[in-house]
Amino acid sequence: MIEVSKTHLYREIHQQPETLERFLAQERASVRRLAEAIQQRAIRHVMIAARGTSDNAGRYAKYVLGAMNGLVVSLAAPSLFTIYQRPPRLADTLVLGISQSGRSPDIVAVLAEARRQGALTAVMTNEPDSDLAQQGDVVVDLRAGEEKAVAATKTYTAELAAIALLSATLAGDGQMLASLEAMPAAVGRILAMNDAIAQVAPRYRYMERCVVIGRGYNYATAFELALKLKELTYVVAEPYSSADFLHGPLAMIEPGFPAVVIAPAGLLQAELRAFMETLHRYQAEIIAISDEPEMLALARTPLAMPPGVPEWLSPLAAIVPGQLFALHQAHTRGYDVDAPRGIRKVTETR
Amino acid sequence: MIEVSKTHLYREIHQQPETLERFLAQERASVRRLAEAIQQRAIRHVMIAARGTSDNAGRYAKYVLGAMNGLVVSLAAPSLFTIYQRPPRLADTLVLGISQSGRSPDIVAVLAEARRQGALTAVMTNEPDSDLAQQGDVVVDLRAGEEKAVAATKTYTAELAAIALLSATLAGDGQMLASLEAMPAAVGRILAMNDAIAQVAPRYRYMERCVVIGRGYNYATAFELALKLKELTYVVAEPYSSADFLHGPLAMIEPGFPAVVIAPAGLLQAELRAFMETLHRYQAEIIAISDEPEMLALARTPLAMPPGVPEWLSPLAAIVPGQLFALHQAHTRGYDVDAPRGIRKVTETR
Repeated sequence: MIEVSKTHLYREIHQQPETLERFLAQERASVRRLAEAIQQRAIRHVMIAARGTSDNAGRYAKYVLGAMNGLVVSLAAPSLFTIYQRPPRLADTLVLGISQSGRSPDIVAVLAEARRQGALTAVMTNEPDSDLAQQGDVVVDLRAGEEKAVAATKTYTAELAAIALLSATLAGDGQMLASLEAMPAAVGRILAMNDAIAQVAPRYRYMERCVVIGRGYNYATAFELALKLKELTYVVAEPYSSADFLHGPLAMIEPGFPAVVIAPAGLLQAELRAFMETLHRYQAEIIAISDEPEMLALARTPLAMPPGVPEWLSPLAAIVPGQLFALHQAHTRGYDVDAPRGIRKVTETR
Repeated sequence: MIEVSKTHLYREIHQQPETLERFLAQERASVRRLAEAIQQRAIRHVMIAARGTSDNAGRYAKYVLGAMNGLVVSLAAPSLFTIYQRPPRLADTLVLGISQSGRSPDIVAVLAEARRQGALTAVMTNEPDSDLAQQGDVVVDLRAGEEKAVAATKTYTAELAAIALLSATLAGDGQMLASLEAMPAAVGRILAMNDAIAQVAPRYRYMERCVVIGRGYNYATAFELALKLKELTYVVAEPYSSADFLHGPLAMIEPGFPAVVIAPAGLLQAELRAFMETLHRYQAEIIAISDEPEMLALARTPLAMPPGVPEWLSPLAAIVPGQLFALHQAHTRGYDVDAPRGIRKVTETR
């Protein structure tokens, strides 16, 4: 079997400090154009069209553009545009397409219809010459370089950075911008967790199902980590907000049931600690991703992140140990981490 | 063990024709008031606040109010209102709370903030005297009668009917209204599937995980059936749209992997047939809920619904065999179908 550090996936995970750095250095102008267009048109509603990993970046946008910029964000239902051909009225809405490849026909169709209706359109993509990019009044180039592994990693954090940069620019907030500029170095420090994560992987070799819990800004992280686990390790990993989980799915938990909890420092801490104590009472096995000692102390497997990242940017940090966990979990199972069974890099759905 | 037909859950599932009939007979006026308020204020955006089963009714609203009424529908992120206390600007938005009990503090908080901002607010609930109902400019009473089983069934279909009635009223479409009025009888015919579904339950006694697939109007059905399976049978059941599933999670499928596909007749048929053929190629075990012979023919376990329900109303029909499947699956495992482990009827999250 190939050494894990020789795989595309390992390399692309480790390229994230430089891809983030490059993005933040080179895309200020495009993001400023988008922010200006939003302000000129006094836009208050955003609809995001995306699939897979990019849809999870959309989940982050819902929280950050809501909390920091007062925008109401919805995730598009592409079938209204393609299958049913009955799209909603979008003239007063920013329609934002997010896609690594820019090639999924249903996402292109949503943007094309939005443009036909006279809506402001924008595209965040790693392929600025793609069909999707043609439909954007403003195009933000993710500048992540070619992503060869099927599972998206560096394009995901670039998408998060693009959304965070848009939020900081809209807010005109120098402190937000400074915090964002510190993220490439912060992600670099997190990558030092690689060896510790590789060492815990064998414990979960025969895990067949798990839940992944996050809330608020890190609701997106729960979805994205669950998707990486499904793609790379074939584990049935289901994402949940801690609140939604208590409305029914808690019934699934039996002794030993594995639960990954994404719990970085911030306003959710009290809530997540209470949630973890509930899991504990049901004898779940907790894997915690956190920079808070009190959260890590509640876990069977603590994955300790270096501290210091503000909560609104924590999704750019907290997904990285998740990516490493999925990578090493797949590798310890002997799976091809660059080309998982059954899926391809570009998926064309309508 | 108690006979299944003596349980609250069995009875409440079987009460659905009468609860739907009562709702449609008695709530025309409240729904008309809501439709008039939407039209007077020229509202184009709806934000739905809900948890658990009611959130799945919100997913239906996203499609039906989008396709039939051109409205852009988003699902609220309650933590923006409660934990972060940074709510988005809602003055031009209808904020709709959906809750059986009307008692979840986070949902009440979303409505209260919307009202403070001067937004139009509405509530669909089975408890018209609840805290949540106090926050609604218009209250739609679900009139489902007391629901004693922890797992919601008749309140879910009542919520769907409330949304469908709102859509038909907004559209001023007599044909839509007539189709909706035929649903109590249609659900009555579907209940005749009970014995056939009870007979297939033992085959899945040791199923530990599955996926539930639906798209378009029945994306909601996939989520709601997956939730019933988690609550009642403790199976890790993950919902997906057929399009999202191809963007990564398909990697999980190995021979024998159980996939429930909700595939009623309609515009999605070609898409779902192609999807089921893909599952077939990966040797998944398909359980199909459909009124279309060509879809049922692709399944190991076909659950055949009587035909004749229009696609936009099919979620009111297609969830019923799903409810029966979850009921009999839990019963055959010897679980208490009225009081699943770990959860209560009213869950108070913030």
